[in-house]
This record gives sequence, structure tokens and C-alpha cells, in this order.
Amino acid sequence: MKKRTNTHPHKQRRLGSKAGFAPGTVTYVGEERSFDVLADIMTWDDSALIEKHNVRIDDLKDDLPAGQTRWINVTGIHDTAAIEQLGRAFNLHGLVLEDIAHSTQRPKLDDYEDYLYVVVKMISYDESERQVCTEQLSIILRGNTILSFIEDTGDLFDGLRERIRKGNAKVRKSDADYLLYCLLDSIVDNYFVVLERIGDHLEETEIRLLNDAQTSDLSVLHALKRELIFLRKSIWPMREVVSSLSKSENLHLKGNTAIYLRDVYDHCVHAIDTLETFRDLSSGMMDVYLSSLSNKMNNVMKTLTIISTIFIPLTFIVGVYGMNFDIMPELHVYWAYPLVWSFMGSITIAMIIYFKRKGWF
Amino acid sequence: MKKRTNTHPHKQRRLGSKAGFAPGTVTYVGEERSFDVLADIMTWDDSALIEKHNVRIDDLKDDLPAGQTRWINVTGIHDTAAIEQLGRAFNLHGLVLEDIAHSTQRPKLDDYEDYLYVVVKMISYDESERQVCTEQLSIILRGNTILSFIEDTGDLFDGLRERIRKGNAKVRKSDADYLLYCLLDSIVDNYFVVLERIGDHLEETEIRLLNDAQTSDLSVLHALKRELIFLRKSIWPMREVVSSLSKSENLHLKGNTAIYLRDVYDHCVHAIDTLETFRDLSSGMMDVYLSSLSNKMNNVMKTLTIISTIFIPLTFIVGVYGMNFDIMPELHVYWAYPLVWSFMGSITIAMIIYFKRKGWF
Amino acid sequence: MKKRTNTHPHKQRRLGSKAGFAPGTVTYVGEERSFDVLADIMTWDDSALIEKHNVRIDDLKDDLPAGQTRWINVTGIHDTAAIEQLGRAFNLHGLVLEDIAHSTQRPKLDDYEDYLYVVVKMISYDESERQVCTEQLSIILRGNTILSFIEDTGDLFDGLRERIRKGNAKVRKSDADYLLYCLLDSIVDNYFVVLERIGDHLEETEIRLLNDAQTSDLSVLHALKRELIFLRKSIWPMREVVSSLSKSENLHLKGNTAIYLRDVYDHCVHAIDTLETFRDLSSGMMDVYLSSLSNKMNNVMKTLTIISTIFIPLTFIVGVYGMNFDIMPELHVYWAYPLVWSFMGSITIAMIIYFKRKGWF
Amino acid sequence: MKKRTNTHPHKQRRLGSKAGFAPGTVTYVGEERSFDVLADIMTWDDSALIEKHNVRIDDLKDDLPAGQTRWINVTGIHDTAAIEQLGRAFNLHGLVLEDIAHSTQRPKLDDYEDYLYVVVKMISYDESERQVCTEQLSIILRGNTILSFIEDTGDLFDGLRERIRKGNAKVRKSDADYLLYCLLDSIVDNYFVVLERIGDHLEETEIRLLNDAQTSDLSVLHALKRELIFLRKSIWPMREVVSSLSKSENLHLKGNTAIYLRDVYDHCVHAIDTLETFRDLSSGMMDVYLSSLSNKMNNVMKTLTIISTIFIPLTFIVGVYGMNFDIMPELHVYWAYPLVWSFMGSITIAMIIYFKRKGWF
Amino acid sequence: MKKRTNTHPHKQRRLGSKAGFAPGTVTYVGEERSFDVLADIMTWDDSALIEKHNVRIDDLKDDLPAGQTRWINVTGIHDTAAIEQLGRAFNLHGLVLEDIAHSTQRPKLDDYEDYLYVVVKMISYDESERQVCTEQLSIILRGNTILSFIEDTGDLFDGLRERIRKGNAKVRKSDADYLLYCLLDSIVDNYFVVLERIGDHLEETEIRLLNDAQTSDLSVLHALKRELIFLRKSIWPMREVVSSLSKSENLHLKGNTAIYLRDVYDHCVHAIDTLETFRDLSSGMMDVYLSSLSNKMNNVMKTLTIISTIFIPLTFIVGVYGMNFDIMPELHVYWAYPLVWSFMGSITIAMIIYFKRKGWF
Repeated sequence: MKKRTNTHPHKQRRLGSKAGFAPGTVTYVGEERSFDVLADIMTWDDSALIEKHNVRIDDLKDDLPAGQTRWINVTGIHDTAAIEQLGRAFNLHGLVLEDIAHSTQRPKLDDYEDYLYVVVKMISYDESERQVCTEQLSIILRGNTILSFIEDTGDLFDGLRERIRKGNAKVRKSDADYLLYCLLDSIVDNYFVVLERIGDHLEETEIRLLNDAQTSDLSVLHALKRELIFLRKSIWPMREVVSSLSKSENLHLKGNTAIYLRDVYDHCVHAIDTLETFRDLSSGMMDVYLSSLSNKMNNVMKTLTIISTIFIPLTFIVGVYGMNFDIMPELHVYWAYPLVWSFMGSITIAMIIYFKRKGWF
Repeated sequence: MKKRTNTHPHKQRRLGSKAGFAPGTVTYVGEERSFDVLADIMTWDDSALIEKHNVRIDDLKDDLPAGQTRWINVTGIHDTAAIEQLGRAFNLHGLVLEDIAHSTQRPKLDDYEDYLYVVVKMISYDESERQVCTEQLSIILRGNTILSFIEDTGDLFDGLRERIRKGNAKVRKSDADYLLYCLLDSIVDNYFVVLERIGDHLEETEIRLLNDAQTSDLSVLHALKRELIFLRKSIWPMREVVSSLSKSENLHLKGNTAIYLRDVYDHCVHAIDTLETFRDLSSGMMDVYLSSLSNKMNNVMKTLTIISTIFIPLTFIVGVYGMNFDIMPELHVYWAYPLVWSFMGSITIAMIIYFKRKGWF
Repeated sequence: MKKRTNTHPHKQRRLGSKAGFAPGTVTYVGEERSFDVLADIMTWDDSALIEKHNVRIDDLKDDLPAGQTRWINVTGIHDTAAIEQLGRAFNLHGLVLEDIAHSTQRPKLDDYEDYLYVVVKMISYDESERQVCTEQLSIILRGNTILSFIEDTGDLFDGLRERIRKGNAKVRKSDADYLLYCLLDSIVDNYFVVLERIGDHLEETEIRLLNDAQTSDLSVLHALKRELIFLRKSIWPMREVVSSLSKSENLHLKGNTAIYLRDVYDHCVHAIDTLETFRDLSSGMMDVYLSSLSNKMNNVMKTLTIISTIFIPLTFIVGVYGMNFDIMPELHVYWAYPLVWSFMGSITIAMIIYFKRKGWF
Repeated sequence: MKKRTNTHPHKQRRLGSKAGFAPGTVTYVGEERSFDVLADIMTWDDSALIEKHNVRIDDLKDDLPAGQTRWINVTGIHDTAAIEQLGRAFNLHGLVLEDIAHSTQRPKLDDYEDYLYVVVKMISYDESERQVCTEQLSIILRGNTILSFIEDTGDLFDGLRERIRKGNAKVRKSDADYLLYCLLDSIVDNYFVVLERIGDHLEETEIRLLNDAQTSDLSVLHALKRELIFLRKSIWPMREVVSSLSKSENLHLKGNTAIYLRDVYDHCVHAIDTLETFRDLSSGMMDVYLSSLSNKMNNVMKTLTIISTIFIPLTFIVGVYGMNFDIMPELHVYWAYPLVWSFMGSITIAMIIYFKRKGWF
Repeated sequence: MKKRTNTHPHKQRRLGSKAGFAPGTVTYVGEERSFDVLADIMTWDDSALIEKHNVRIDDLKDDLPAGQTRWINVTGIHDTAAIEQLGRAFNLHGLVLEDIAHSTQRPKLDDYEDYLYVVVKMISYDESERQVCTEQLSIILRGNTILSFIEDTGDLFDGLRERIRKGNAKVRKSDADYLLYCLLDSIVDNYFVVLERIGDHLEETEIRLLNDAQTSDLSVLHALKRELIFLRKSIWPMREVVSSLSKSENLHLKGNTAIYLRDVYDHCVHAIDTLETFRDLSSGMMDVYLSSLSNKMNNVMKTLTIISTIFIPLTFIVGVYGMNFDIMPELHVYWAYPLVWSFMGSITIAMIIYFKRKGWF
């Protein structure tokens, strides 16, 4: 998945680059890429599994024999010609093709009667940059075929593929709607991995703030809050997608897949709960940060005040006996000098006792 | 589009200037303008397109032959007589005419059975003033005719006009409801252009704040927040408009235009999500600004405290030996002067070590 | 309309003065008044209009001939005997009479089958006190008669009366439900007048805050926020009133009055939008105010720190050469005095450069 | 009513003391009390009223003749045996008895088909402690009998009792559901008395804050906010109670009592509006308090800075001429001393002008 | 119940440890444990009760005779093999088994037609760590059998077991749905125990803050807020669980258990109310804390300012007469020295009066 670049930390991609185009124009919006757009195909029934890798888009056809399930995973959405061709082969609506190529979609579910179109966000966490990275996944469920589109190589579905390869996995015995569930389940499970990482950083930061807040913690805290804001933008709509997928009298769902989707929905809600808890915590931590700034200022001021309050009066006293008046009787008293010293000592001790009482030390 | 003037940055136009008039009185509310109100007409069917420019309002008639689609775009709403005449020609309700001439409407959708009346806001961003400019667009969908009213020359629809001129565009083969969709789509797509600009400014400001907050950043940040507040006022109601347009069992919508409107609706929701994200970010940035003010104050105070804490005691010491007592034995000691210096040096070094330990340097 | 008095700026009237009375007891709650409660009556049909002024309440009867419309406007609600008599004449429920006399009602709509009872708030803005003033208006729509009750002379309906006097106005040709609409429309239109005034003050205050925040701006800002809080209390329930009036399958509404009420509803929503925008703005302005306090403090501290940091070390140096040690070789060096001056000059220049670099000037 | 004790200002009673008991176990939860639990009974029909005072609970029976209405008011809920006996006499569900004896219930309405069970909070304001006191009132409406349970002597219903004693009051001619309304009406009317008192304190505090905020105002303001939080907890659920009482197709309500309950509902909403307004105001006042702290600090700092900035440079100058260099030509100049004075005078005047310009005086 | 460990105060367990597994894979997620998973069984009808302790999971069968009720309480969920075996014995869905073993579920209710699956959180408060501890409880209601799973020994149900052992308790005479109610009731009752403890700490902290806020109170307050955030996450979803349990046309509920569940629902709402009240209070306390920091700073600054403002001018004066000009007439005046002293005394007194007037003492 792609990180947001450093110089543009809070903007995922150019939002406005589609303005002025006709609706249904398939235009790639996203990072520049040049690799060939290829597909991996898995076709199976109860007894057998056929895998093909790096199939050219031209060779894809909507020719699934009855009783079989097929998963076509297309890697790369930057070749709009390929996507348009695929659209013709699978008879997809122009708006669907437009949305597939537009990598800044909001997660959503569109029901086109013949097929379902689902857009979701895969999320990962870049530990070194401490940044949330997102990648768009478009899924089309059409009869017993799943078409999925990812932006770049590397996805979250290796575990799923392994399960498909095992003959006795439930996914091998189920229809494509169960595969759709498996894809969504993998994505939502991964939300918790990301949330856990962020939770760890929040915790470290919290401990540091409570012990000894540094100026630099401000930007750490701000960055954490920002990542939470962006996560929210991806996870909240996911809940709606899963909810409307499981709730609606959905003709694309067979048998008991709805029960499984209800489970994914529960996980989404759990992820959102956790996210909101983190947001609450980070707000509380900003309060802690501001309070410790005030506390630090208080300590600086106390140091200044203690020193000034002790020495300014003493300096006045020694100034008095530095005056050059002709007639200053004290100057000629024998014990005057030691007396002045002991007077100044008493003042100092009194001051220190006073500050101790006030709890300034 | 018109900017809000500098002296009235947050008030778009005189809100209250209609109070006291009878309902249905067509009164222009908006900036003063004096150009002639004229219309541009595009009429087309599958095979042909006729364009007329700068048609006088008197010459407009509701005489569209069956099988054709017509778009009448009226530029200028300040000539109330012209609007009333148009109202008679197209048999529009008095309240519609009143709303067309009142340029501070809230976006809304009114269904008058014979026709639909839609008010929306076109938004642009004035880069030099860093200000959001809005312009009201009223659209009437009546049978196969679209009547649109803009306040001033210059709109967002040049791309759409080009598409109409091409014979094979979908808009040429569809009814007027699809044209309505195209207008709304252009407007919503342009929201992202504006949001992207604001996002860029937010980002610049954020980077500056985290590095070195300046007093002037306060007004920059406040201005950004204000623009977001105003954008919100235009974009939120847009969602309702598109939603009720696509959801209702709308007799004015044919075939599959509802699918397209659902797409515009998704874009609206995306725009709102982005806007709210920006609002969250700008709130976080205000926290950062306030924290850096505190940090700066802390640094100023530390400087003062370090200097005072070092020199005030030293000044006291030299004051002591400036006293004029007759009997001050130290004064006559040979090594006294260098000893005082080395004593003061030790104090200073001790102080510096103390401050280093406290991390004040 | 009555202002809230100065000593009780945020309490409109005694809220609790009804506790302990039986339900349906007509008790006046409001400012003390002693003028005679009188009514103005306008009766009309298509062809003729009869106006009577200052009619005594005893003379009012529910005797409207068919085909005519009547508006009875009662000025003063402090004479509970008169209101009870009117209640008997028009067969009104005890709770309605109680509510009419109780001038701190929340805006609401009650449907008593035979008649509708509407309570709303007229709002005006007292420019000199910068205070929002409210006055309660009770309206009863019973068949083709409108009974309206205002607290004091002076209302917002002079424009409406003028329209009634013109034979060709729509209100002359419509039933009493249209008159009810006209009353509500006048009130809601006036909200914008008040909002515009408050918007102007917000703007002035904002400009002043961004340029040079004064201590006194705190109370100005607080007062603005308070007025917005009170406005909210009047305008929000108005929306509910108009909404339930236009939405319900209301047997009291004829023909197309619902279309007009939908328009008033849109205006209410617009007013609420504007109000909430103002609230957002005023919150932002409080942030600006607090930031400029911090900025001012920063500047004060910088001044102190610059002066102290420059002069405290210098004072130490001159103190050194004021000491009276017998042996201080520097004192006898020929160029010592000018050298000390130039040394102090160098320190000062170094300090100034240091502060310049830190951007403190 | 009982105040919350001083040492436990924000906890009404022991919340958790029921944990571990079987459901339906009647356990008293509340302040310790030992007086005898007795009942006052009023029985009436159109023509006659019988009052019995201090009836022992053993003597209560469910034996109301047709055509009569009875109000049994039980004072004291700490004698669980008495409550269980009453439960048997009137055939009440175990959960109802449990709830009656548990004085920290949340206001609620339970419909047990045979009877209605309503729990509400009576509220009073203890002027000396500036604290809101609550007392639980349980009401059972069963046929034409009202059973009410209060915790302690002294309630809000003296006015109601007086009305019952008058033969011509509506309550004498109505069924027990109207009496239920009268009880709720008395309670809600009293909310306004309490709100008004709090409003007065808010106002006093606001005026004081805007003139001259004191440290002690912080705890006053905090206490006001806390009382508002507790009021909220009692008043918000009351709205639900009255709403579901009036809305539901309630077989316990006869004739037009629903109209009266709608009126109580409106008052509840009004009370909630007022409460939320007070909360908004008190938040605003906290901002004002914090701002005036900052303003005070600013003034302290200005004083310090003015004095230091004027005198520190002067002290340096006089220090210069206190040095003991052999060769300091100025010392021997005739006009030197007055010149130094006038130089210092000029500096001082320049400083004062500078500070005046900055607006520090 | 397990506390969150000190080093990970705000993360209950590893959230993400399930990512990559197939749906329905029973994987233990929680603290490491190694004791044997055993069950306690209580079987009863009206006349008799049989208790078996520490039954091995292999020996559990779904063989309850008609007319009896059985409660199987399984202690330990870390042995996934045991849980899978139990799943086969009672014919449970794979997702249920997965959820039972996953100890960080969000409270929820799943209806699997044959049985109900409920997940809730038991909460306790660890007084020494001042931390909320949670433990997951899974309950399966299948016909007349309750299967409950707790993570560790030690639960909240000892009181309930005692009641079952008494022959005449309602739970002995009711079906398993009433036992389900009893379990939920015990858990919700215990919420109040925890809330009360937190309320006590809030109160102590509040009193301390208002008297004399210490730096350490910040972390106390922050910890309280954090515990409230975590409590919220457990209690809010509980309301939904109980609500959907009591509301739905639930075929698993017999007779009048719904009435009892309504009571639990009321308690949930009460607990949530209390929790939100505590959150409001703790927010208010953060304001108090920040204000007292400012107040303290103000006092420190006042001390510094008073001392500096009095002594800096005096030090200047004595500096003046320490100058060594040849001609300084005052030096030779006889009363000069006492006059200077009295002049300085007057200045000091004037200053003190000035500060008194300003209320700085």
C-alpha cells in the first residue's frame, strides 16, 4: 500500500482531478504507475482448483461453467483501456468502471441488479513513518464470479488464498458470496492490527506525557490525532457497507452468508468503538500536555521568584551602605558589618521558610 | 462568481432585505448589477443541435417539439421584470420566481408536480483572497426543458456544453433529467477542486505551525476555519437535495437517471466527509497553535529566569564589597579581589550545571 | 417589544410564577401592564373590507358570515378576565387560555380539532442595548377566523395590513389559513433582520479582535454568544411548529397553503443554519480572543526579558568596579574606564543581535 | 426533601447497595429513617369528600366503590414490611415493590396492564447550601385509585389538596387519571421554580465575573455546573415518561386527559430547553472566567514590566558612576550630577510615553 | 477478573491477533492460562436440585430431561479443543465457538434460531490499582439449558447459586430464560458497585482540586477519565443487548421474563446516565484543574511583582547616592541620610497601599 508522501501528509490523492470530465469517463486518479495490469484467476469446485497467474486482461471472459466459483483478482487500475475492456467483457456499467479507476472513492455498496459493486479500503500502518496507508479495493460479485481490483501488488489475502488451496476449507464448498465475505473479513480483521499499533503509540506517548512532557510530544500527539481522523474516514463508511450488505433482502447472498456478514458487522462496530475510544484518549492527552506546559511554566516562574525575592531586598540593603553621605553613623559602628550580614542572613532564612510553607520547593 | 467583499468577510449578502414584502413578490436580493439579462438556448435531438446565444427574455417560449431536449440558460437574475415575464411564459409559481431572484437561498428541491425546482450553490475559490465564493444556480426541469438561472457570466458548464456539441455524447441521447444530473455532477465535482485548495492551505499552515508558529498564523487559521464553516453551509444541504431527488418516487426522472444521481449523492457524502475531516484537522491545529504560544512563553521565561538567577546573586555580592563600613576586614586581604571573582565564577558554573540538568538549555 | 431589563439580562420573565395553580387557571405571567385590552378587527371578502379599531373584548362574537374572512388582533394579555370572556365567546379550551396569558411559552402547535392553536415568538433587536427582545404571539385559527394575541402595541404586521387593504392582494382572495401563513411569514422574515444585525456586530468584533483585542471585547463577545443562545431558544422550536403545520394531514389547511408553508419552513431552516454558523463563528472568535491574550502576554514578557537580560549583567559589571577592595589593579589602568564601556557596549550589541535572531523584535 | 450531604456533594445515595440480592427483593435504599410509615387517604365523588389522615398501612384495602376516586398517599418507604403488605393488598408485582423502596430509581413508566407504575423525581432547591435536592415519588394508577409513595413528609401537593377540597374543581369531577396528571403537573411546574433560582445565581455570578472575577468564583461556577448536571439527570427522563404516557394508546387514560398530558409534555420540553440554555451559559461563563484570569495575569505582568523596564536601566547608570576607576573624567565635571539626573529623567519620560502608546496604562 | 497490566494501562488484550485466520477458526485470544477447563452443572426442577462440580468437558451432553432446567458454567476458555468438543455436543455454529474463545468481543446478542448467544462483560474495580477490570461472559440459551463461559475462576454469581439452592426461589420454578435474566441482572447490579467506587474517587479528587490542586492530581484525573472511557465501551453495548433481548418477538423468552428484562434495561439506562454524569463532572474538574494552575501562576507572579516593584526603585535611590561625583550637594547635608530613609519608607508604604487596593494581598 502507498503511504501519503511526507510533503502532503494529510491529502491522500488529488481529490479534484476529475472535475470537468463527462460522467462515465474512465480516468485513473491515483499515484503514477506503469507496470502491466494483469490478473490472477482461481477457479474451483468441490473437487478441483485451477490457478492461473498473470493473465492478460484481454484474455478474461465471463465464461464460468455452472457449479464452479471463480475469483479474478486484477492488480493495477491505472490502465484505463484494460479496465474498459474488462467492463465490456463482464457487461459492467460505465459508472462502475469510472469508480474502479478512481482510487479515492468513499467505501460504498452499489446494487446493479445483475451484480453487486463494493468499494472498500485496505488499511496498513507504516511503522517507520507512523502513518496509516490505505489502498482501494473494488469488488464485483456477479453470479458465482468475484472480480477484485487492487491498486498495487501486495495485499492482505495470502491467508485466504492458502485456505482456498486446501480442499476442505469452507470457502471451497461455498458460493462466491462467501468469498466476498472472506475478503471483507480479512480487511476488517486487519483494521485491528492497525488499531493495535496506534494504540501502542498512544500508550507510549501517554506514559511520556504523564512523566515529562516534551515540546516534541506536541507534534507526535498531533500526528496521532491526524491518523485517527483519517482512519475514521475509512472505517465508518465500511460499517454502512457491511450493514446494507447483510441487512437488505439481497438476492446476491445465498444461504447463511448473512450470518457471517453479521459477524463482520459486529467487528466493524468494535473497530469503530475502539477508534472512538482512542479519539477520546487522545483528546484527554492533549489536556494533559497543555497542563504540563502550565506546570512547567509555573516551575520556571517559581525559580525566578524565589531567587528574585531573596536577593533583590539584600541588594537594596548593601546598596544602602554603599551610599556616600557624609553623616551615616552606622558606617562607623564596630559591629556594623557583621550585624548587616546576620540581618541579611535572617531575612534569607525567613524567606526560605515562607516559600517552604507555600510548598514552592 | 462574486467574492464576499473584504469589509464584510462573513456575510454573503443582505439576509433581511425581504422582510415586509408580500409573499410571491419578485425582488432581487444580491449584488448590484446592470447588464442585460439574456439567455443561451441549446435545442437538440439525436441528429441535430441548434444553439442560439444572447436571446432576449421576451422571445423565450415554452414551445419545445416532442422528441427534442432544450437547455435555456439565463444569465442574470437582477431584472425582475424579465423573470416575471419568463414565469408567465413557462407558467411558474410566484414563490419560484421570488426564490430565483433571491440569491441567498438555501439549496433545496421543490416539486411542483408540473415541474421540479432546484436551487444549488456553485462554489469557487479565490486564490488571491483565499476566500470561498458562491453563486446561486436555480434549475427548473419541466418536461424535456431545463431552465437554469445564474447570477453572472462565467459558470462551470463549459465542459458540459462541449459534450453536448459532440453528437455521440450520452447527454445528446438522453432526456432533460439526464441534463439535470450533468449540471449537478459538474457542481459537485467542482466542490472537490475547492476542497483540495483549502486542503493545501491547511497543510501549509499545519507545517508552519508545527515548525514555528507565528502570531499571523492565528488569523490565517481563523480564516480557514471560517471558510470551512461557510462551505459547510453550502454543501450539507446539497446532499439533501440530491438525496430527495434520487430517492423519491420522482415522476420527473426517467429510466436510469436515478443510478447516476446515486453517484452524485455518493460524491456529496464524500465531499462532506472531507469537509468534516478538514474541520477536525483545523480544530487540532488551533490546539497546536495555542500550545506553541505556551511553549514560546516558556522559552522567554526561561531566558529571563536564567539571566536573572545567575546575575542577581552576583550583583548582590559585588554590592556587599561596595559598602563603606569602616571595618570590613576582607577589603584589606591581598587575594580578596581574585577570590571574590573565583567565588562568583563557581556560583555561575553551579547555576549553569543546574539549569542544564533541568533541561533548560 | 420588551427588552430584558439590564439587571436581569438573561432571564426573560419569571419562569416559575405559575407553580401551585390549578391547570387551566388563566394567570398573567409577564411584565406589569395596565392599559385596556382592546382588539382590532378586519373582516373581508373578495369585494369589501371592514376595519374596526379598539373594539372592547366584550363586544367580540363568533359570528362570521360564510364567505368572509376575519382577523381579530387582541393587544394585551394581562387582563385575564377579558381573555376568559373571549374564551367563552369562541369556545376555547382552558389550557389554551392559560397559555395565551402565560407570556413565556415555548413555541408550539396544538390541534384542538375545532381549531388550531399556535404560539410563536416575534423577535426584534434593540440596537442601543445590543439585545434581542422577544414578544409572544398566540394565534388561533378557527374556521375562517384568525384570533391573534400580542403582548403590547407595536408589531410586525403593518406591511400585511397594507396588503389586506389592497383589494387585489392574494390574502384578500384566500381563506384564513393563508392569513395564518402570512403572519408566520412576516415573523420568520424578521428573523433575518435580527440575524443580520447580530452578524454585523459579530463581524465588527471579529475585525477588532484580529487587529487588537481589548479586554472589553470579552464582554462584547460573551454578550453576543448569550444573545445567540437566546435566539436559538426561540427559532429552533419555530421550525417544528411550521413543520408539523405543513406536514400533517391538516384539515385546517385548504388548497395550496401547504406549498406556502413549505416555503416558510425553508426559511426557518435557513435561519437556523445562519444561527448555527454564527455560533460556530463566535466560538472561533473566543479562541482568537484567548490566543491574542496569550500573544499580548508574550509581548509583555519579551519586553521585560529583553530589558532585564541586557541591563542586569551590565549592572553587575559596574557593581564589580564599585567594590572597595584595597587591591584592584584594573582601577588604576589608564584606559580601564573606556574599556569597560566598550566591553559593555559589545555585550549589549551581542544581546540585541541574539534577540533579533530569535525574532523578538 | 433531603439534601445531598456536604461531604458527598455529588452522590445522591449508595447506588450499588442492591447488588447480590434476588430480583423482587424489597430492600430499602436511601437515607436512614425511623418514623412510622402512614398513609393519608382522600376519597371523593361529585358530591362528597372523605379525608383520613395517618392511616396504618395494615388498614389499607383495595375496596373503592364504583363512581368514586381515591388518592392514597403513603409517606415513607423505609418500612419494607409495610410496602410488601400493601403490595399484597393491591396485588402489585414484586419488581414494582422493589422499585418503590429503592429511592435512586431513574424516572420511568411501566405498564402492568392492570395498573400503571410511574416513578418521578420531585426537585427543590436548598437556598442556603445552593444545592438541588431530589425526592422520589412513585405513583400507581389502578382503576380509579392513585397510590403515591413519598420518602419523607413535606411535598409539593398542598395546592392540589386544597383544590380537591373545593367541590367545584375539575379534579373532583374527573377520574384518577386526571389526578395523575395533576400530580405530574405540580412536579413539572416546580421545576421552573428551581430553574429560576439557579438562573438567578447564574446571573449574579455572570455579572460578578464580567466585573471582577475572584478565585472563589471558580468553585461557585463549578457548583452551578454540577447542579445543572444533576438536574439534567432528573428532568430529561421525565420527558420520556410524560411522552410515553400521553402518546401510547393508553387504556388507563380516559377522555381528554391526554390533552392535559400533552401540556405537561410541552412544559417538560420547555424546562429542558431552559436547562440546556443554562448549561450553554455556564460554559460561556467558564470561558469568561479563564479569560479574566489571563487578563489579570497580563496586568500583573505589565506592572512588573513597567517598573523593571524603567528602573533597571537607571540603576545601571547610577552604578556606572559608583565605580572607583582612577580616571573617570565625568566625575569631575561641574554639571555632571544634574546632567545625569536630567538624562535619567528623559529616559523615564521616554519609557512612559512608550508604554502609553502601547496602551499599557 | 484480570486487571489490565500496568505497562499497558489502556489496552485490554491484543486486538489484532486474529487477523489472517479463517472465519470459524476457534483461537484463544486473551491472557495466558493453563488450568484445566472444567464445568459446574446445576440441574433442577420444582422438587430437586443436583449439583456437579469440576465436570470434564468431554462428559457434557445435551441430554436434559423435559421439565428440568440446567445451568452449565464452564470456567476457562483457553482450551480451544474443549470448546470445539462442546460445540459439537451442543451443535453450536463455528462463529459462536470462535467468539467464545475470543475474549475481547464487544457485548452482543446473536439469535441462531435454535439458541441465543449473548456476550457481555463482567466488570469489577481493583481498588489498589484504581483500575476497572473486565471479564467476558458468554451465555448460550438453548431450550431449557444455559451454557455460560467465564475466563477465570471467581465470578459474580455466588448469590444467584445460593438462591437456586433454596427450593422456594423464583428461579427454581422458572425456565432457563429466567436464569438468563438472573445472570444479566447480577452483572448490571454490579455495574453500580463499580460506578459507586469511581464516584467516590471523583468526589475525593474534586474536593482536593477545589481546595488545593496539586500537580499529581492531573494524572489522577486523567486516570479517572480513562477508566470512564473504558467503562463506557462495556456498558453502552450492554444496553443494546438487553434492549434487543426484551424487545424482539423473541421465541426464546417465555411468559413474563420480558417484564424482568425491561427492569434490567432500566438499570442499564440508569448506569449509562450515571456514567455520562461522571464524564461531565470529570470534564468540569479538568477545567477546575486548569483554572487553579492559572491561579497559582497568578499568585507566584504577584509575589514576584510586589517584591520587585518595591525594591527595584529603592535600589535605584541608594545607587544614586553611591555615585562618586565630585559635586553632589545632598551628600553633605546633615539630615540627608535620615531623609533618604524616610523618603524610601514613604514610597514603600505607598506601594503597599496601592497593592492592597488592587487586592493583591
